[in-house]
Amino acid sequence: MLELKDIVAAQKRISPYINETPILASKLLNSWLGHEVFFKCENFQKIGAFKARGALNTVSWLLETGQKPAKIVANSSGNHAQAVAFAGQQFGIPVTIFMPDYSSKVKIQATKGYGAEVVLSKTRDITDSLVREAAKENGVYWIPPFNHEQVICGQGTATLEALNAIENIDAVFTPCGGGGLTSGSLVATKGISPKIKMFGVEPLQANDAAQSLRTGVIQSLKGIPKTLADGAMTMAIGDITFEYLKRLDGFFEVDEEEIVYWTQWLTHLLKIRLEPTCAMTMGGVMQWLKTQETKQRVVVIITGGNVDQPTTQKIWDKDCLTTLPVL
Amino acid sequence: MLELKDIVAAQKRISPYINETPILASKLLNSWLGHEVFFKCENFQKIGAFKARGALNTVSWLLETGQKPAKIVANSSGNHAQAVAFAGQQFGIPVTIFMPDYSSKVKIQATKGYGAEVVLSKTRDITDSLVREAAKENGVYWIPPFNHEQVICGQGTATLEALNAIENIDAVFTPCGGGGLTSGSLVATKGISPKIKMFGVEPLQANDAAQSLRTGVIQSLKGIPKTLADGAMTMAIGDITFEYLKRLDGFFEVDEEEIVYWTQWLTHLLKIRLEPTCAMTMGGVMQWLKTQETKQRVVVIITGGNVDQPTTQKIWDKDCLTTLPVL
Repeated sequence: MLELKDIVAAQKRISPYINETPILASKLLNSWLGHEVFFKCENFQKIGAFKARGALNTVSWLLETGQKPAKIVANSSGNHAQAVAFAGQQFGIPVTIFMPDYSSKVKIQATKGYGAEVVLSKTRDITDSLVREAAKENGVYWIPPFNHEQVICGQGTATLEALNAIENIDAVFTPCGGGGLTSGSLVATKGISPKIKMFGVEPLQANDAAQSLRTGVIQSLKGIPKTLADGAMTMAIGDITFEYLKRLDGFFEVDEEEIVYWTQWLTHLLKIRLEPTCAMTMGGVMQWLKTQETKQRVVVIITGGNVDQPTTQKIWDKDCLTTLPVL
Repeated sequence: MLELKDIVAAQKRISPYINETPILASKLLNSWLGHEVFFKCENFQKIGAFKARGALNTVSWLLETGQKPAKIVANSSGNHAQAVAFAGQQFGIPVTIFMPDYSSKVKIQATKGYGAEVVLSKTRDITDSLVREAAKENGVYWIPPFNHEQVICGQGTATLEALNAIENIDAVFTPCGGGGLTSGSLVATKGISPKIKMFGVEPLQANDAAQSLRTGVIQSLKGIPKTLADGAMTMAIGDITFEYLKRLDGFFEVDEEEIVYWTQWLTHLLKIRLEPTCAMTMGGVMQWLKTQETKQRVVVIITGGNVDQPTTQKIWDKDCLTTLPVL
């Protein structure tokens, strides 16, 4: 299993290339809740999401261990595409990203903007088989989105930074898609202090990780989940991340109404652009805080701020700002 | 006329109470435009807008000059209401704010949250006569939203901070409602260097300041203007601010389509929540940059981040992110 020193090594590797992102808080929210919530804002990270950390650490680790690839490939419709393109660009390694052609134009543009070749195909299945083919070629390295130790280490640096910056934290909450961020955060958190609780949060509509934890066996979603939290739409967690998720102090599921509610409220209170995937995490925080009798200090990882127009429209369809957040 | 030293004095007065807000830039935007644009992010200011500066400076100046009021009053449906409430709270002075009852619930709540008494009435005319009545009472001080030297000085500190933080700036752009921010910014900018150009920007649909500058006489809007830039919906500039606006290097008018376009793009590129009123300013920047033959370094004041749900829905009605910003 990975240890704190592995996250620290990742942090050292990637620190020349990443932003040390700000930690924001809302006095108003804290006064309403009677607790303190600190938001580690990875929406201000390179490429607008924490994923830059995992991709940069993996490429940097490949170079450090004498495995410099001639080419890097990845398949993604989301932030991982941009992260791998960005990481390749930093180290002058050519990158090809396989994306479904229904990916948002903005994300395709951004991925190309980081110098990557983008290959579009009609379905996710085709992109999956294309990347598998491409990865067979000599000197080509495939960076997966979460089920990879160096990706996990990179993602964990967000939590490492937050816990180094703020003292006396009682609990850390992360959204959970494939489990890369949650696994890395667990390693960082428990390495710093086993007393700090570590939680994962998932959309109720895409609760494969929660199902997997309940049954003890990795479960896959049946069909494409209907959730606004597109960063947590992963069909199944990985065998590597599953081993870490089993060690969490708890896992929360959040419904779509609450995801919209917290996306509106965090946008409003923190004055930031953020993805529903991370706003969702507050739903888990609220479930946990309801069970607490003393004042808690909590870290929430705001994973990214890349939201397209159709999703923004869905988020702001109804007015949730008329109902104050209370426990 | 006010001078740089007045803005510096204001900065000294208010600095214990305000945030030194971050200055953000987008590498992507700068690479597309071939210029450098720096955004001074007052959406991260106390109360979520630069207005905190003017209100705090006025109250602080009253105390400094031995004019401590028994009570402070103001009339506003927007950020000025929250700013005055906040300023009163800092110095323990009771505040009453007169607001039209169609003001957004969120802003009414926030104003009350800063400890102010809020008096709602059916029309803006009624709030205006109520505040005028209230201000006649002994010991009551009415803080107007822009046409007041100490309000102007306070607002100018945003630009002072920006120009102290970044070197070799060629031009400063501010949105213009009643002209308080634009006037204060002019004093700060020209005081630091007469070579730095200073511009104001207004919605084409609420172009009373542009009309006033063209005709040389203060012009009032006829009827409530239809613009998303609600912070620039002021019916007329003031006699004090008009004298400063006459000294600007230029003034730009921006249509609604462009206001929506830049609100979407700045949200996307900077990952912040911002008001259409300040996003509009980029429309003026673009008009000016089109006439420039050498690379320019520009400051834009992002005035605030308080946006309600109906406005957000209007902003994101169509997808503007498919058309890249180019000169």
